Formats: sequence, C-alpha cells, structure tokens
Amino acid sequence: MKHRIYVVGIGPGSLQGMTLQAREILDGCDCIVGYDTYINLIRHYFPGKEFVTTGMTKEVERCRMVRDRALQGQTVAIVSSGDAGIYGMAGIMHEVAAGEDIDIEVIPGVTAASAGAALLGAPLVADTCLISLSDLLTPWEKIANRLDCAAAGDFVICLYNPASKKRADYLEKACDIILRHQPADTPAGIVRNIGREGQEVTVLTLGELRKMHLDMFCTVFIGNSQTKNIGGKLVTPRGYHL
Amino acid sequence: MKHRIYVVGIGPGSLQGMTLQAREILDGCDCIVGYDTYINLIRHYFPGKEFVTTGMTKEVERCRMVRDRALQGQTVAIVSSGDAGIYGMAGIMHEVAAGEDIDIEVIPGVTAASAGAALLGAPLVADTCLISLSDLLTPWEKIANRLDCAAAGDFVICLYNPASKKRADYLEKACDIILRHQPADTPAGIVRNIGREGQEVTVLTLGELRKMHLDMFCTVFIGNSQTKNIGGKLVTPRGYHL
Repeated sequence: MKHRIYVVGIGPGSLQGMTLQAREILDGCDCIVGYDTYINLIRHYFPGKEFVTTGMTKEVERCRMVRDRALQGQTVAIVSSGDAGIYGMAGIMHEVAAGEDIDIEVIPGVTAASAGAALLGAPLVADTCLISLSDLLTPWEKIANRLDCAAAGDFVICLYNPASKKRADYLEKACDIILRHQPADTPAGIVRNIGREGQEVTVLTLGELRKMHLDMFCTVFIGNSQTKNIGGKLVTPRGYHL
Repeated sequence: MKHRIYVVGIGPGSLQGMTLQAREILDGCDCIVGYDTYINLIRHYFPGKEFVTTGMTKEVERCRMVRDRALQGQTVAIVSSGDAGIYGMAGIMHEVAAGEDIDIEVIPGVTAASAGAALLGAPLVADTCLISLSDLLTPWEKIANRLDCAAAGDFVICLYNPASKKRADYLEKACDIILRHQPADTPAGIVRNIGREGQEVTVLTLGELRKMHLDMFCTVFIGNSQTKNIGGKLVTPRGYHL
C-alpha cells in the first residue's frame, strides 16, 4: 500500500478562509500535526480529531514525526497557516520524506499576500515580489540583494516576517534599500493578525513605514511607482483606459 | 444606505478550491458578474442565480456595469479566477468605483501560483516573483527588466500569461533573459488547466522550457539556484539542516 501525507494550507485561520478541499482532508485524516499556534486556530473546528503540536522552530522534527506516522499506516495531515507552499511546510516535508514510498499531496490555501492585499484594497494586481525578512534560513546579504533587485524592477513588494525581537531594525534596513529606487511617499500598507481576532489594517507611506516597529504577526506591502491611495485603499492601477 | 460590491476570487475553478467565505458571498448576492469562461466554471454550483457575462477584454465595461447595479441597490459579486487581487479584477473595480458611495470588499482566493506550486511539489517556499508576460497593459521593456531583476536576485519566478497567439515568442525571450543569470539545467515546471478538466503537470529544465509552445491556460515556474527535482517534484529547499 502506498502511504500518503497531506500538507494543508489553512488560510488566515478561520474556517471561512479555508477551502472546501482543505476542510474535507482535515475532516478525513487520522491525525493533524502542526505548530501549536496554528493548531489552536483550527482545533475547535475538528472535534474528536487527534492533534499533535510542536514548537515553532521544530520543523524538521515535525516532518519526521509525520513521515514516521505515515509509514506506520496513518493518514496524516500537516498544516501551515496561509498556503503551505509559500513559506510553509510543503518544501521541508518533501525533503524529509524523499526516497520513501509516500505520496505527498499539497492542498493550497490563501496566503497572507492575498488575504492582506484584499483588506488593503488591490496592491498586488501588478507584478509582485514576495520576500521574507527572516534571516534564520537565508543570509541577510541575500535578502538585501533581493530587496534591491525587487525595487530596481519596480515590483510591488510584499514582506513576510517583517520583524521579530532579534531583528528589530530589519524593516528599517529594508525600507532604506527600497528608498534608493522609490520615493518616500510611495504608498504602503501593514496588515496585522489577518483574518483573526485583533485584525489591524494600516495604510501609510514608505517613509512612515521605515519608522514602524512591527511584530511577526504583520505582513507588509510596498507599492510600485504606479500604486495609489484611492479613498484610503491601496490600489495599483494596471493601465486600463478609464 | 451604503452600497456594496464584492470582488470574489473563486480559486482554480472547482467548488472544492473555493473558500467557504467565497461560496457564502456568491450564494447570498443578487447577481454574479464575470468573464464568460470563469462564469461557466461556477454557474452550476449556484442554480437559480442571475449571471451576467462579458467577453475577455471588456474589464472596464464589466466594472461599470457592476458599479451601476450596486448604485441601484443590488448586491453584486464580480468574480476572478484564482485570487481577485493577483492579476484579477480587484484593482480596476476600485478604480471604476472611486468617489462613489460604495464599499468594495475583496474576498481572496487561491491564486494560480499557489495551486500550481502545490501540484508541482514546493517550488515557492522561498522568495518569489510573480510576473505576467502579457504586454496588453505593460510594455515589454518593463516586463523584460523585471525578468532580469528577478533572475539577478535569485528569486523563484512564477510566470502568469506565459503565451498567447499574438506573443508566441515571449516565453523564449523571457527564458533567454533568465538564462543570463541561471544555468539551463535549472529545474522548471508548467501547469496547465490547474484544477480543471485536462489538468497537465510537466517538470522540465529552463533550457527545455525555452523551446516550449504554451497557451494562456498555462502557469510557468522557474526555480532559483537552490531548486531541485526530488523524485519528479520541484522543491526549493529553504536551508533546514536535515
């Protein structure tokens, strides 16, 4: 018998933001594994289900546990918030299960770029770069070069993991790089706790963003040269003739 | 009374790939407006609903119709496939309704980058650029510069609208630009008719991709310097120690 693992993106966190497919897979599996913060978002939607939680930086251990349970015959789902394929568990799960007789099926979800953009208006309808400011797995020099290339290409930029206690000044450094190419009045936005309790939406400018102190629950949006503030909404016109 | 328009991302096209929120909004609205190809994907899920379809390049007219119906008191939903905020109708809808007493609510969906990546494996778990090769609204020189910047930054690249009859050689030109920075054996992928009848998934290399003739139903993925082919799946390792 071929074994199977589901890697499921749950969207922002409510049942409403999950796809029907994600919900059905989670309903039907033997066990749901994930980082405890995300499991706590969905636990009450699946009463009676076995949940296994691990801490934030335990990604490899989590995937090994999922692999071992699958090899023992369990149908296991491992969850990521947002989309499991965008800064989520889909990659490391494939790496950990490489060479095993296991089918891995990734169930896509609504990523923070999409969910946050929807709240801000429509900043991402043009070409966009997604960049994580976390240097846990990527050296800062590489991140800095990507920020420079993204701004040089006049991309809209969406920043994941814009800050944490250990890298309090990364957002300021990132804005300084983008300011080499874009003016300080470029429209920008911050969305915090997307789709969850305490959701906050802020429209501001790149110059103002530079001075903000954010936490890891934020996603940041920086417009391209065309992005406008239309009645408090962040909108990037694509060039239609109105 | 404040008027309201919903701009709804329906995901790849099946009910399974839609969020619960999108389904509820479409169930509850008076009228669903969209490009006929997308309306035909969802029409049978909402029996008895009024649908209004327009042709592919009629985006501005479509949004004006939605605005006018909303001002007359109807609750109107305008749909995009994938996510309405990523190359979808959210931007032009905000522009057309600017200055009117209308609340526009964007309901995010699963975009082709997420849905296609899930089928290919996990190419997008690292920093990613989304670039459309359509020059209907963006001059080719700007697209070419973005391709160059994206490859120079070692981003994973996801191409929307990789080809059409009028721009048969754009994918080749795009690959040539990326080949200045990445070797020809860089893993790449093509997904066609994502989540729909006739779905096709192809894993190949950047050099092979350059010679492909694609249509507008395809989404293309090109790895960064770290992307690997693991057992036929496209995976971009993020740098976890295994």
